[in-house]
Amino acid sequence: MDEFELLAKLRERLPPAGPRVRLGSGDDAAVTVPGGATATSVDAIVDGVHFRRAEAPPQTIGHKALATALSDLAAMGAQAGEAYVVFGAPPDLVEEEFEGILAGLLEVAAETGTTLAGGDLTRAPALTLAVTVVGHARAADELVPRSGARPGDVLVVTGELGGAAAGRLLLDRPELAAAIAEGTAERLRNRQLTPTARLRSGQALAAAGARAMIDLSDGLAGDARHIAEASGVGLRIETGLLPLAEGVAEVAGAAEQDPLQLATSGGEDYELLAALPSEGLVPASQSVADETETTLTAIGEVAAGAGVELRLPGGGLLESRGYDHFAGPKPGSR
Amino acid sequence: MDEFELLAKLRERLPPAGPRVRLGSGDDAAVTVPGGATATSVDAIVDGVHFRRAEAPPQTIGHKALATALSDLAAMGAQAGEAYVVFGAPPDLVEEEFEGILAGLLEVAAETGTTLAGGDLTRAPALTLAVTVVGHARAADELVPRSGARPGDVLVVTGELGGAAAGRLLLDRPELAAAIAEGTAERLRNRQLTPTARLRSGQALAAAGARAMIDLSDGLAGDARHIAEASGVGLRIETGLLPLAEGVAEVAGAAEQDPLQLATSGGEDYELLAALPSEGLVPASQSVADETETTLTAIGEVAAGAGVELRLPGGGLLESRGYDHFAGPKPGSR
Repeated sequence: MDEFELLAKLRERLPPAGPRVRLGSGDDAAVTVPGGATATSVDAIVDGVHFRRAEAPPQTIGHKALATALSDLAAMGAQAGEAYVVFGAPPDLVEEEFEGILAGLLEVAAETGTTLAGGDLTRAPALTLAVTVVGHARAADELVPRSGARPGDVLVVTGELGGAAAGRLLLDRPELAAAIAEGTAERLRNRQLTPTARLRSGQALAAAGARAMIDLSDGLAGDARHIAEASGVGLRIETGLLPLAEGVAEVAGAAEQDPLQLATSGGEDYELLAALPSEGLVPASQSVADETETTLTAIGEVAAGAGVELRLPGGGLLESRGYDHFAGPKPGSR
Repeated sequence: MDEFELLAKLRERLPPAGPRVRLGSGDDAAVTVPGGATATSVDAIVDGVHFRRAEAPPQTIGHKALATALSDLAAMGAQAGEAYVVFGAPPDLVEEEFEGILAGLLEVAAETGTTLAGGDLTRAPALTLAVTVVGHARAADELVPRSGARPGDVLVVTGELGGAAAGRLLLDRPELAAAIAEGTAERLRNRQLTPTARLRSGQALAAAGARAMIDLSDGLAGDARHIAEASGVGLRIETGLLPLAEGVAEVAGAAEQDPLQLATSGGEDYELLAALPSEGLVPASQSVADETETTLTAIGEVAAGAGVELRLPGGGLLESRGYDHFAGPKPGSR
């Protein structure tokens, strides 16, 4: 298949464009009429760096590329709008694989109301997907930066942590699955392969007054540090309150690793960490529960100062280690 | 250098953001307030496919990545706004090379009033730059698609053709430079290495009533076909009227190639091809001349029917061949 055949195949499978799109894929540029404010983010995944082509079914590659890009819009509290995809195809890419990746992109686009409004197809030495996503809000001040956390705010996290890192371990070492039920193992592997962007939770948190927000891509410890630095505050996280995903403790135990390390440094959970004024906690929890099937957990607080403390239940601090997604824990921070 | 050091280095060199940007690089997403309509396009360049890292000075790689992306906005008649850059860095990339590429990006950004509002830095097996550009117009109907050409319209092209292909030949075969003055050879090589996006010409053409427009990336013959197909018309181009860049005839002669092939199939000139109502020709030419230092040349007309005819001065048709930018002419169309 040449470039034009692939593009024609792609275009004929695109669903109708969203209401803001006046001219979609196929011209020099897409034309949109955004209305209020836009949030724009780019994210690239490369074979051998962010996924392994030999291991990940093609559909999961397309899914992960778009979901992880959209996760940045979730962290702003934006509504998903348009996506633009650069597809770098290696010489040995076969049509079936291309179609699978496309199916994964289209699946996430349909679930989230995202229009695939344009793209570029190029040869590349390794399979590469670079995704630009544009989200929308009525006004710029409805979008939540990393920089607004204030001392006294409560820290909340959506959903569950450590699942993606445990899934990574299960994919690398299938024998670890003996420690848990097969359904649980499957859910953990899916946390790694097909993450979900918490778009509705992000919008609910923004509406409930979140002052700072980030998505957990690198891991709670590192991402919390981004909020601390951007806001000029310190964050205190009680590790005893962290909502571990089911099976994480067992997989970590079987792998002789600390489940708290998976939850704080494993990364790729794509949950949201937000700082809320304390009076916003109950309404935000209610709103997230109403809008989505996701729970909200209070895990700590914002304080004056700087840096991130991960406090252990018995006193003392957890020393967070950097974690290489492909090779287990490594010394030093990332 | 690790990712965070590179990003910090990048951010400290960014100029102040444009007026639409409320939150620039460094958060989960950039926040903008676009106003009217936006035109969005993505373009990727990969070492060994679109440029040769060993041959192109780093600054020209950054320059070409952003200029070729902006060329798509020029073809819509949009004003340049924001750019988002995915930087895929191979393991052997050195700091000096990174800085050079960044300097090339910043140079084009400054020249065109583009804000580098975000990006992503990742490892990749080959140097890759994927650039998303967002342009602006007061309303969607001020932007020019490929699909509006009507029978009777006049076809115009900005600037000069064949220069980038001749520059490619000079880079591949330095001995060909003996056929022309060194200043001319240098200009032709620069057409290949550091193209210019015709943003002001595109806006002037849009304001003068252009009904269809495209930038010449693949080559006049192929790009004209896109307008013909999107508009449901035929295009007749008089090859005797094509504005060949100075030195193209001599370089083609020395390489025993047809200069018209370089001008129609060589690609990468990044000039604009537009269809104008015939009464718009004089005002458009005046406006392009006033706004820029670029000339506008009438090269043919739009007719009922389909396809693209490249007419030779003595009668008969030029058969356009596909052209591989790295290996000279090849049989068949692209």
